Amino acid sequence: MARARWGCCPYLVFLCACAWGYPRPADLGREDVRNCSISPPYLPVTAVNTTARLTALRQQMQAQNLSAYIVPDTDAHMSEYIGKHDERRAWMTGFTGSAGTAVVTLAKAALWTDSRYWTQAERQMDCNWELHQEVGTTPIVTWLLTEISAGQRVGFDPFLFSIDSWESYDLALQNSNRPLVSITNNLVDLVWGAERPPIPSQPIYALQEAFTGSTWQEKISGIRSQMQKHRRAPTAVLLSALDETAWLFNLRSSDIPYNPFFYSYVLLTDSTIRLFANKSRFSADTLKYLNASCTGAMCVQIEDYSQVRDSVQSYASGSVRIWIGTSYTTYGLYEVIPTEKLVADTYSPVMMTKAVKNSREQALLKASHVRDAVVVIRYLVWLEKNVPKGTVTEYSGAQFVDELRGNEEFSSGPSFETISASGLNAALAHYSPTKEVHRKLSSDEMYLVDSGGQYWDGTTDITRTVHWGTPSAFQKEAYTRVLMGNIDLSRLIFPDATSGRVMEAFARRALWDVGLNYGHGTGHGIGNFLCVHEWPVGFQSNNIAMAKGMFTSIEPGYYQDGEFGIRLEDVVLVVEAKTKYPGTYLTFETVSLVPYDRNLIDVSLLSPEQLQYLNGYYRTIREKVGPELRRHQLLEEWEWLQRHTEPLDSRAPRTAPLATALAASTLAMLSWSI
Amino acid sequence: MARARWGCCPYLVFLCACAWGYPRPADLGREDVRNCSISPPYLPVTAVNTTARLTALRQQMQAQNLSAYIVPDTDAHMSEYIGKHDERRAWMTGFTGSAGTAVVTLAKAALWTDSRYWTQAERQMDCNWELHQEVGTTPIVTWLLTEISAGQRVGFDPFLFSIDSWESYDLALQNSNRPLVSITNNLVDLVWGAERPPIPSQPIYALQEAFTGSTWQEKISGIRSQMQKHRRAPTAVLLSALDETAWLFNLRSSDIPYNPFFYSYVLLTDSTIRLFANKSRFSADTLKYLNASCTGAMCVQIEDYSQVRDSVQSYASGSVRIWIGTSYTTYGLYEVIPTEKLVADTYSPVMMTKAVKNSREQALLKASHVRDAVVVIRYLVWLEKNVPKGTVTEYSGAQFVDELRGNEEFSSGPSFETISASGLNAALAHYSPTKEVHRKLSSDEMYLVDSGGQYWDGTTDITRTVHWGTPSAFQKEAYTRVLMGNIDLSRLIFPDATSGRVMEAFARRALWDVGLNYGHGTGHGIGNFLCVHEWPVGFQSNNIAMAKGMFTSIEPGYYQDGEFGIRLEDVVLVVEAKTKYPGTYLTFETVSLVPYDRNLIDVSLLSPEQLQYLNGYYRTIREKVGPELRRHQLLEEWEWLQRHTEPLDSRAPRTAPLATALAASTLAMLSWSI
Repeated sequence: MARARWGCCPYLVFLCACAWGYPRPADLGREDVRNCSISPPYLPVTAVNTTARLTALRQQMQAQNLSAYIVPDTDAHMSEYIGKHDERRAWMTGFTGSAGTAVVTLAKAALWTDSRYWTQAERQMDCNWELHQEVGTTPIVTWLLTEISAGQRVGFDPFLFSIDSWESYDLALQNSNRPLVSITNNLVDLVWGAERPPIPSQPIYALQEAFTGSTWQEKISGIRSQMQKHRRAPTAVLLSALDETAWLFNLRSSDIPYNPFFYSYVLLTDSTIRLFANKSRFSADTLKYLNASCTGAMCVQIEDYSQVRDSVQSYASGSVRIWIGTSYTTYGLYEVIPTEKLVADTYSPVMMTKAVKNSREQALLKASHVRDAVVVIRYLVWLEKNVPKGTVTEYSGAQFVDELRGNEEFSSGPSFETISASGLNAALAHYSPTKEVHRKLSSDEMYLVDSGGQYWDGTTDITRTVHWGTPSAFQKEAYTRVLMGNIDLSRLIFPDATSGRVMEAFARRALWDVGLNYGHGTGHGIGNFLCVHEWPVGFQSNNIAMAKGMFTSIEPGYYQDGEFGIRLEDVVLVVEAKTKYPGTYLTFETVSLVPYDRNLIDVSLLSPEQLQYLNGYYRTIREKVGPELRRHQLLEEWEWLQRHTEPLDSRAPRTAPLATALAASTLAMLSWSI
Repeated sequence: MARARWGCCPYLVFLCACAWGYPRPADLGREDVRNCSISPPYLPVTAVNTTARLTALRQQMQAQNLSAYIVPDTDAHMSEYIGKHDERRAWMTGFTGSAGTAVVTLAKAALWTDSRYWTQAERQMDCNWELHQEVGTTPIVTWLLTEISAGQRVGFDPFLFSIDSWESYDLALQNSNRPLVSITNNLVDLVWGAERPPIPSQPIYALQEAFTGSTWQEKISGIRSQMQKHRRAPTAVLLSALDETAWLFNLRSSDIPYNPFFYSYVLLTDSTIRLFANKSRFSADTLKYLNASCTGAMCVQIEDYSQVRDSVQSYASGSVRIWIGTSYTTYGLYEVIPTEKLVADTYSPVMMTKAVKNSREQALLKASHVRDAVVVIRYLVWLEKNVPKGTVTEYSGAQFVDELRGNEEFSSGPSFETISASGLNAALAHYSPTKEVHRKLSSDEMYLVDSGGQYWDGTTDITRTVHWGTPSAFQKEAYTRVLMGNIDLSRLIFPDATSGRVMEAFARRALWDVGLNYGHGTGHGIGNFLCVHEWPVGFQSNNIAMAKGMFTSIEPGYYQDGEFGIRLEDVVLVVEAKTKYPGTYLTFETVSLVPYDRNLIDVSLLSPEQLQYLNGYYRTIREKVGPELRRHQLLEEWEWLQRHTEPLDSRAPRTAPLATALAASTLAMLSWSI
């Protein structure tokens, strides 16, 4: 799990926010908020004066004959994280939270956001802004219907609206005689002017072949073959999500925080490949790699990013059928394609193909998880030594694990902001420590670390929770039940093409049995040096069905408000299961390879099947991570691994076999070193 | 489960049809189908000549300047079963299957239906009709876009379109310049003329107070109080589903097969109650019961059924807000309410209130299930005696169980067409025997009976599967795993407001473990002398979350194509669960009270927890049904019950304790008789 948004899909943030209940913001003073009911109003120093920019925006609105203008929090690719120059809603309102929609009329200005951000909004916004403690289209439209009159126009930037989002506004405003008007020239950008952060210009580079599952030419051929097989025989595929382009061409850059993507669109036909991006960002080698100088069916023609709408519109004027994935395409492109020329599926063929990793991609992702296990094990060993000294904080811990990852082979930085949370902070939904506000780690408290890396061969994401002292009986029970949930879902056998949504309760049942639960989703897809929350795989209701070759996280948890938080997150691969009777059944193979905390497992709660599974997993960890630790001469970590992967036995005392194992393992280690 | 449609909700039929896979029709000759590719075409005797009615319909279309006209299979209340006079699509096409949409253009006519009905359609339609083996809006609109030109109009009857259905057509046709035109005068009815079956005219009667959970006045007050508490303060509630009116006023009739409903709408405001129905169908007593002669806030004003659209439109011209449930309201009413005056929820407050039974309703439904258990036990005892004689067929069995139910106290007929299926027929999705086509029951085959009753106090639905001879090891394993699924879901503890969709896999896991599964849903709500498939409770993705006081069926199964079928269906009540840690957790209490077939249970497969649960259930059956059998002096059935509810023990041989128990129970029976 990561701090900002779930999936490469911004609307999921609401699910997450609601599910977690109403966590208390960790690092915001509750008191120092605006007070607009006194005269003159009280504004904290954190509030932003938006009077001038609102006046300027209203001038732009009047020039367009608009009575209202909607400012959402997305970019033109529905990205999970957005770049600074796309933070229009933040700049306009002063409120910097990751979720919230602003609407400006000629008389009023209002922001809608969820409970995570109410205090933050009251600290950052001045009294020009109403705060509405709601989310979704309905309350916004309800407000609009009272604020503007019949006949008045509501403007929006079609590139910041998903098709779904546009449909919900369109439907809600239908018959109300308040036309919804698409204005492609973003009015906030006009006002923002020179203050707006620049568009990224770093190089766009090709991945080395060793880190790709197929060449871009093979991928293009595969997509073209799907076009031919499609019932409606589309003549083109239009791609809008940034990870689609990155995956398709094996290209990467760094336009988006934590995601190695670059701003782009693709229009792929049987005979042409048109890549809309900033051409100056490609080196001569990369242009050559893309066959950018020719015009054949296997030559990539690079056209300017800003030309995409006109180009699609012009292409759509012919006798064509354009295949799009409706979940990421914006209304800005959708509206220029006549309905009868549209082949609309929820996800593009690129998104669907990318979701199922081929054998090379599987091997690459697994290899990155072996190295990532070394990082996490090194971190856990370091914590075990240093926490009792009182020298580690949540922040220094996060820095250290990020540094360990950064030094690993093929590293390209963290895949999201590390969650390093001690004691009660681990019960907060979106907590990450800062240099200024953090907690010291202690042997008296539980500690949760949720982190991951971007490596050239794969993206990782793992959570472990530990206790170095004496956990309470309740902490042990809760931890063990979270582990039982992780095991029950991991070892589930299910029919091919089952939706994750219908199976995720197996990760909860051990908790439910005693009246406990967790308020977030159970897992998400993950990519090969792509999104850490790769859509559309996972356990939510809008994820696609499970298929062999997909990767997803499994991450049950338990959060005791004000006391502690537990989460055990592993990445798993969907594999075929062998069943007594014939049929295509699937199960999961865990590729995250870090043992759980023996100090927190109450073995007596585990069923024989759960225990057998756990010991099998521990054998796998020894087999796969042991040699990697050996390769790096990490003797201490190797010994730690042996101790922590000793077979568990519900009948035997917990510590008995450790001494023997340690002696044996040290001998073994010595023999390797020789 | 019943034969026709799931839920009071016609669109679910697709889910059901797809989930079952592609069963072979049982009673239709495969060969005698039309052949339109030869000249002259070959038409079986079952084909209907539709040339004249198509010509007449096209004349009506031309009079309205329409180039296409859509004929769906619904009524104006989105009912699960529809009356004869609403079978427009069947009359127009000749095809009588329960699911299918017809579209007529000036040049062509086409039907879309699912795999259950392809053969039937080929037997019943003449060569005027194209058959499209697909379902959903997309293929219909795709076809329309090629068949009619830009500028041409597509007509439809707005009373036969749900809002969702209209939205999907509207969206698909948007930007295509083919206007979708609402025509309230149904064109098929104009052509059908005098041949059309009459509208029902039986009396509409009030339920005795003993069979109601609250008076209609209490219910009206409850709904009005919800109106006041609603954030948007609606001034009226508009009801369209027939079970809403029946429930709200405690009124019943018999307009719809198996459902005791009457055609009606309700417009309820703070100060008025307007019931749209045929006034001549109310007796003087019923009119008095409804306070129909006054005009106060607690007087029911009866207005003509046909006036509803005009009345709603006229009411909507005022300063009002009308609360509707969008899942059952048709576009015919929706389109006359301006958007800003609409308070739209998925389900009306009546639908939501009805879903949670109060304590009286719970007691009534439970009482009907005790009597219904007596019926099913009598039937099982009768079968046990008569099947070995070779005198029972699927059809005579179904007749006998229907007769037993008909003779029970408070009976008002079956709640759906009894599924009585022997051997391979039980593996067919929608099989019911007919007088002409049925199979003889035999001790060598498994037999499945899925049946239910309408009683004044409650609606029932139960499935048992039995074998009177020696089942194969595979049959026993499959049966036991279906039972394990029923038990695992029934004993699940889950948080308040959990969606049924996320927990239904617990009913499947024991099957999945060995590579088996079933292809239908796991359960549906049920009413108090209302729908046997009462929406919106159940385990599908579009059901509402579980709450204390709801009733649902739990009905896992297993179907071995061409050999046998197993289904074990019980109705359960959602009750509070006691958990170790505090919190609102729920579980199920089974109210169907008929033992499973010991002959088919492999006790060694059951976990200790499953066995304990099963034996507890058997104790409950003895406690609740025993006295009822005693009351009816059904000695033989009482003895049968004792034998079949002996505690099961995984260690002891199966037959050991029976003799003793029988002796003891006969003694006990004698002591009662004294």
